[in-house]
Amino acid sequence: MTQKPTSLPAILVVMTEQEKVEFMPPDLEARLRGMFADLTWVEAPLEEDQWHKLLDQKRPEILLCAWETPPLPLSAGEYLKFCCFLCGSVRKLVPRELVEGGLKVTNWGAIVSNTVAECSLLLILCALRRVGNWSVAMRRDGKWKSGRHPDTLSLFGRRVALHGLGSISRELVKLLKPFNVQLSAYSPSVPDETFQELNIRRCESLEDLFSTADVLVELAPGKPANHHLVGEDLLKLLPEQAVFVNLGRGMVVDEAALARVSQQRGLHIGLDVYQDEPLPVDSPLRGLDNITLLPHLGGPTPDRRRDCGELCLENLENYLHDKPLINLIDLGIYDRAT
Amino acid sequence: MTQKPTSLPAILVVMTEQEKVEFMPPDLEARLRGMFADLTWVEAPLEEDQWHKLLDQKRPEILLCAWETPPLPLSAGEYLKFCCFLCGSVRKLVPRELVEGGLKVTNWGAIVSNTVAECSLLLILCALRRVGNWSVAMRRDGKWKSGRHPDTLSLFGRRVALHGLGSISRELVKLLKPFNVQLSAYSPSVPDETFQELNIRRCESLEDLFSTADVLVELAPGKPANHHLVGEDLLKLLPEQAVFVNLGRGMVVDEAALARVSQQRGLHIGLDVYQDEPLPVDSPLRGLDNITLLPHLGGPTPDRRRDCGELCLENLENYLHDKPLINLIDLGIYDRAT
Repeated sequence: MTQKPTSLPAILVVMTEQEKVEFMPPDLEARLRGMFADLTWVEAPLEEDQWHKLLDQKRPEILLCAWETPPLPLSAGEYLKFCCFLCGSVRKLVPRELVEGGLKVTNWGAIVSNTVAECSLLLILCALRRVGNWSVAMRRDGKWKSGRHPDTLSLFGRRVALHGLGSISRELVKLLKPFNVQLSAYSPSVPDETFQELNIRRCESLEDLFSTADVLVELAPGKPANHHLVGEDLLKLLPEQAVFVNLGRGMVVDEAALARVSQQRGLHIGLDVYQDEPLPVDSPLRGLDNITLLPHLGGPTPDRRRDCGELCLENLENYLHDKPLINLIDLGIYDRAT
Repeated sequence: MTQKPTSLPAILVVMTEQEKVEFMPPDLEARLRGMFADLTWVEAPLEEDQWHKLLDQKRPEILLCAWETPPLPLSAGEYLKFCCFLCGSVRKLVPRELVEGGLKVTNWGAIVSNTVAECSLLLILCALRRVGNWSVAMRRDGKWKSGRHPDTLSLFGRRVALHGLGSISRELVKLLKPFNVQLSAYSPSVPDETFQELNIRRCESLEDLFSTADVLVELAPGKPANHHLVGEDLLKLLPEQAVFVNLGRGMVVDEAALARVSQQRGLHIGLDVYQDEPLPVDSPLRGLDNITLLPHLGGPTPDRRRDCGELCLENLENYLHDKPLINLIDLGIYDRAT
């Protein structure tokens, strides 16, 4: 156990009952309470004026919170030093001005990458065995396969192409290892050494990546420059019967083009993210033949959200002892976030 | 290249056009034809009297064939020495009397285990993320998740229990490795050393196996003694929200009990095999809430059937050079096969 620093700052904890169950189960809550003498725990959701009154009254140095917390007012910059966020995107919670003014903000960073990678593998395997089709056919239509030659494929030995080589792709590489796949990736910002370490062929162009993919995993970041980056021209380069899965950001893919090309080339598709979420009821994607659709649940499953809670406890310890914070969000990261 | 023996036996090859495409693509066919001087290739399907006439006329020493070949008559024992079967179950093709009489028979043995293990991992991940439900909801019902707390789970760190520790389970252990799962298994016939090598906890009873399983993988053999071995009593021992998948044999599981218990305990289910196949249109399984159903396609996907073709070429070489045959089916194996 680390010793408590002599002068302990005040912390405000805000979460819903459900967020508490998932992110801060009893063992973690006990550790958290043991770390602070001046701790206020408030149950979300809160009305905005309740929230502002609470902040004015407590003027906490530290805020620990999750999704269901209203945005911070600019006046919080007067007292708040560290916003320890249990989840991912901080832009709704923290105005840019507060980060500019020196507020330290952290989030779940790459700790959730393994569960997104897990969902990527799931959608790849679903696409290869046509689980989307069979689920509907078996459960709703009373069907069975005809004959011994179903239209299914195996992942063993395939060429898997990664669009993006961030933390999710790297976790996915670990899960793919037992399948003896041949890996390639496109990611201009990642140095050659990383490609070599991971035994991944570097593609110099997206054309190269798409045209040599049995399985294309879309994990490119959702920045404005990537809007509809994956359109008809690239998709048409995929070999016939190729798998296309998207676990990154919906805005990267031109969905109308995907729907068209998939039928022309017999693509097998798995999607977790969409241009518009919730996916519109009349989206043509819902009616495609060879597709498995999930409603954006690749992120940390509720049972792994305690990992985010543990990470926050570690960061609170770091803060108390003036050690570097994990997943600190500077202005560059803030502006690139999606 | 091995030299051809001086006196080459006659071989009869029987398969449908589709079987040829999958099991014996052009490169393998060329190798096969290069091995034999006296080779007859006949396209299936064949009528039974056509088939008998063909055999009487050719009297081949070797038969290479797949599913769509009619049963061998007992008279084939007069000339046939080796039946090299490209697929799994030989009982429909080869009468027991021929094996008793010394006919050598081989099949695909364990070479298909990796694709069945792949399908096992797929169904585990499907059950954990409720893919069966989401597929229907997203594709047919125009739905989306409600809120941020979907009823999904991750495989990372879970307790995975294997009922059966044959070749499929062993391949599955390789695929599970990156998920840091805790493994247990029940298999009385497998020695302790195997459990130790694979770092699997040995369960002395099925009660122990089921009561400590977050994920139960059913891979027990389909012998008569195992009929409905997994019934209400065992299934009730599974922890709430546990995953139950069956990639082995349908007859091992009491499906009515599974349907009942799954609703009581909120089990997540994935099935590829059933007591009656095709699964009856009115099977209660089709209407269950938390289930992903596949129509028995765990076996080698068509793209990996060439592995079975390669194995047969190796066995034909072995036969020609009097070397031991791989996956030779003796009477014990013949009688245990399902």
